[in-house]
Amino acid sequence: MHYPLHLSKLINTLKKLPGVGNKSAERFAFQMLNWKVEHLQELAHLIQTLPDNLAHCKSCHCLVTPEHCPFCDSSKRSLKSLCIVASARDAFAIEETREYKGLYHNLGGLLSPLSGIGPEQLKLHNLKDRIQTHQVQEILVALDSTLEGDATAFYLKKELASLGIPISRLAFGLPMGSSLDYVDGGTLARALLGRSHF
Amino acid sequence: MHYPLHLSKLINTLKKLPGVGNKSAERFAFQMLNWKVEHLQELAHLIQTLPDNLAHCKSCHCLVTPEHCPFCDSSKRSLKSLCIVASARDAFAIEETREYKGLYHNLGGLLSPLSGIGPEQLKLHNLKDRIQTHQVQEILVALDSTLEGDATAFYLKKELASLGIPISRLAFGLPMGSSLDYVDGGTLARALLGRSHF
Repeated sequence: MHYPLHLSKLINTLKKLPGVGNKSAERFAFQMLNWKVEHLQELAHLIQTLPDNLAHCKSCHCLVTPEHCPFCDSSKRSLKSLCIVASARDAFAIEETREYKGLYHNLGGLLSPLSGIGPEQLKLHNLKDRIQTHQVQEILVALDSTLEGDATAFYLKKELASLGIPISRLAFGLPMGSSLDYVDGGTLARALLGRSHF
Repeated sequence: MHYPLHLSKLINTLKKLPGVGNKSAERFAFQMLNWKVEHLQELAHLIQTLPDNLAHCKSCHCLVTPEHCPFCDSSKRSLKSLCIVASARDAFAIEETREYKGLYHNLGGLLSPLSGIGPEQLKLHNLKDRIQTHQVQEILVALDSTLEGDATAFYLKKELASLGIPISRLAFGLPMGSSLDYVDGGTLARALLGRSHF
C-alpha cells in the first residue's frame, strides 16, 4: 500500500533538502501531520515568501534584507580588509567568530569545471572595482579546504596579483578539540607544514 | 551579526521537525534560498493543504484520503485478523512487509503516564465494537518494544481477555543482518527466550 498521494508528494519534495533521504522525509511529513494548522500555515508562509524577504546585496552579494546590507554598512566596519567567501552562509559563520570586522565578497560558489562552473559563473565582475574603490589593504580568501576551494583560491591569487595587495588564506590544521588518532593524514600533513612557535 | 529576520524565523520553524537541530535547519533554509520560486511555492502549498487532503479513518484511525480508507476496504482484506498499531505510519510499515493482509486499528499513541497519556487519550472507544462486528479471530499487537509499548500491550491483553480471542505480539529477537557482537544484552536475552527450531 502506498501513502496517500498528497503525503507522497510532500515526502518527495522534502527529500530535495540536503541530507534528507526517504526515512527522514517520511519522519518530517508524519510529524507535520501532528502540527496545529496555524503552525503549518506559518511554515508554508515563511517558505513561500522567502524570495520576497531576502535579497543578495548588489555590492558584496551577501544575503541581506531587501532594504539594508549590514555587511557593507561602512560605519561599523573596517574597509581595510576584504574577505572572499563562497556562500552567503560562510559570511555569517565568520561573523560568528567575532575575529573579523572587515568587508565581505561572496563569490556564490567555487570553480568546478566538472560541474560547468567557470569564472563567469562566479560573482567576480565587481570584485576588483570594490578592492580599488575601498582601497583595501588585505585580502583574506576564506574558501573550503577542498579541490574546488584550492582551485578557486589559486585563480583569485593569479587574478588579483596585479593589484599588489597581500592575499592570505585561512589556516589549515587540526580542528579544535580533535585527537590525533582521529585526524586524517592530509590534515596532519598540513598541520605539520603550518607548525608555529607558541 | 544575526541572520535576516525572515531567515531566522524559517530556521526556528524548521527546528520543530524531528531530529532537526540548529545546523540542519540552517542548511535547509540556505538550500531553500537556491530553490526556484515555483519549487518553494509547491512545498508551501503541500504543507498548507496537508490537513485538507488527509484524514484519519473514523473506523480504524489510520491515515487515509478524505474519500476512502484502503485499510478498511473489506473487498481486498481478510476480516479475520486485526493488527493494533500505535501510529498511522506503523500500519504503512507493516503493509510494506506484504506479510499481513488483515484489518488495522491505530491507537494513535502508547500509554505513558509520565506524559499524561492514559487509556482515555488512546483511540480505544470503538476497538471492542470492531472486533465483535467483524468477528475477528486473531488480534496482533504490533507495538514498540519499549516500556510504553509493553505497558500498552499488557493493558490491551487485560482489556480484551474477556473476548476470548487469541492475542499475539510481534516477535522480539535479533534484527536481521546484525552481528551478535553489536546486539545489546536485553535483545539477546529475548532472542534466547524466543529460540525456535529450524
